[in-house]
Amino acid sequence: MSHNTFPHADHDPRAVRLAARDGTLVGPTAGLAKGFVQVNLVILPEAQANGFLRFCQSNPKPCPLLAVSEPGERGCAALADDLDIARDVPAYCLYRDGRLDQTVHDVSDVWRDDLVTFALGCSFTFEHALIQDGLPVRHIDEGRNVPMYRTSVPLVPAGGFAGHLVVSMRPYRASDAIRAIQITTRFPQTHGAPVHLGDPALIGITDLHSPDYGDAVSMGDDELPVFWACGVTPQQVLMDAGIAFAITHSPGHMLITDIPDSRVALL
Amino acid sequence: MSHNTFPHADHDPRAVRLAARDGTLVGPTAGLAKGFVQVNLVILPEAQANGFLRFCQSNPKPCPLLAVSEPGERGCAALADDLDIARDVPAYCLYRDGRLDQTVHDVSDVWRDDLVTFALGCSFTFEHALIQDGLPVRHIDEGRNVPMYRTSVPLVPAGGFAGHLVVSMRPYRASDAIRAIQITTRFPQTHGAPVHLGDPALIGITDLHSPDYGDAVSMGDDELPVFWACGVTPQQVLMDAGIAFAITHSPGHMLITDIPDSRVALL
Repeated sequence: MSHNTFPHADHDPRAVRLAARDGTLVGPTAGLAKGFVQVNLVILPEAQANGFLRFCQSNPKPCPLLAVSEPGERGCAALADDLDIARDVPAYCLYRDGRLDQTVHDVSDVWRDDLVTFALGCSFTFEHALIQDGLPVRHIDEGRNVPMYRTSVPLVPAGGFAGHLVVSMRPYRASDAIRAIQITTRFPQTHGAPVHLGDPALIGITDLHSPDYGDAVSMGDDELPVFWACGVTPQQVLMDAGIAFAITHSPGHMLITDIPDSRVALL
Repeated sequence: MSHNTFPHADHDPRAVRLAARDGTLVGPTAGLAKGFVQVNLVILPEAQANGFLRFCQSNPKPCPLLAVSEPGERGCAALADDLDIARDVPAYCLYRDGRLDQTVHDVSDVWRDDLVTFALGCSFTFEHALIQDGLPVRHIDEGRNVPMYRTSVPLVPAGGFAGHLVVSMRPYRASDAIRAIQITTRFPQTHGAPVHLGDPALIGITDLHSPDYGDAVSMGDDELPVFWACGVTPQQVLMDAGIAFAITHSPGHMLITDIPDSRVALL
């Protein structure tokens, strides 16, 4: 069954996870189990995990930690009941020696007793809140992936990891940008308020029309580019560190938790 | 005694009001009785006051109502104990037939039994919060009045009043602008979040170096102009309406209330 016809928008989170687990769902999770938090996953051997935990705590905007598993555990009560981390994501990326090696739908065959799972908040949560408030989200309206850019903004080095911030961009008229700042401020665990707006050159972006990840979107003359810290940052950091073995979700193919969106809102 | 040597920064609000009442204080109130809300005053005959109340309620960003007095009352329990509205402001503007007629230090001789007082929140409150958070406020750092501009943004016509928004401007680097939006969002009763940022031409401002009120301030190449609704708006509206008789505070010479700043913060 194609993911495009997979009718889980109104399903509960567990139904979506079970569909990923049994191979029915292999596509992106945008719009599925609406109202529940979807998370970025980073899965690392314990030897690197302790350093990565310190790195996340030093860089909370790109790496907002929602939960960390015990080594080897494929469940995580803080995220969901009846969870199998190794099978409940529709697609995973396997990294070996600092490079993306494979994209697979199940990582139970490569699972190890020392693997630690990091669940990081994802912009889907605040995009849902923006749309609920009547604000447009350009890349969704244009049926594209969000444009993402490497920047010159240094991350705080910690635990053996370092690098530069990756940001996502959504264009807004000024009054909508102000409202978007207010709304996303309520969601510090899903990247929170923007990190920059206006002149892209000030954060080392030379051409908005050529994103480093995702797709370019159109922008009006009366719009400002608004930049949020992006969950692709840790993936880039892991590759830059030449990590021997890591697993992440495949971009857009998130783990759906049992956490209602409102539980990660400040108010 | 010159207002420049008037040492009331640490005094309580009542001491400052009494100094204005007895003529000791005739100068601006910026920095006096720190931590207490200062307000813009608009005082109108009841015949116009009912319409003006509807106008304020339709335009809360430039006209955030903190309190409205009963006709003829020179006290207002919602603002302060032991208050004499006709004498406790260091300087008042008298308008006749739509024009500024006089600036005086006491309006008890022109007081009327039909006068209604409107107390509107003032940006001093959020500027104090910005500074407490470590953000610069350029016009304060440069010892000038805040630059203010007429815009092309129409107000909501109501109660016989209409016109265009007047804004104040403070320059910030993007990350500080985002923080300033968060902080001022907490103060909806003192103009709240900005109404615009970035390109001034989009709201009808042609030259940032030529403000319509106040003083120009310097701006860095890496800074955005950030615009807030301004309490000068109602004064401009009253003049545009050709109002026969009105009293306001003189700009910068505010009424100091007994209300702690935290009482007008959302959180």
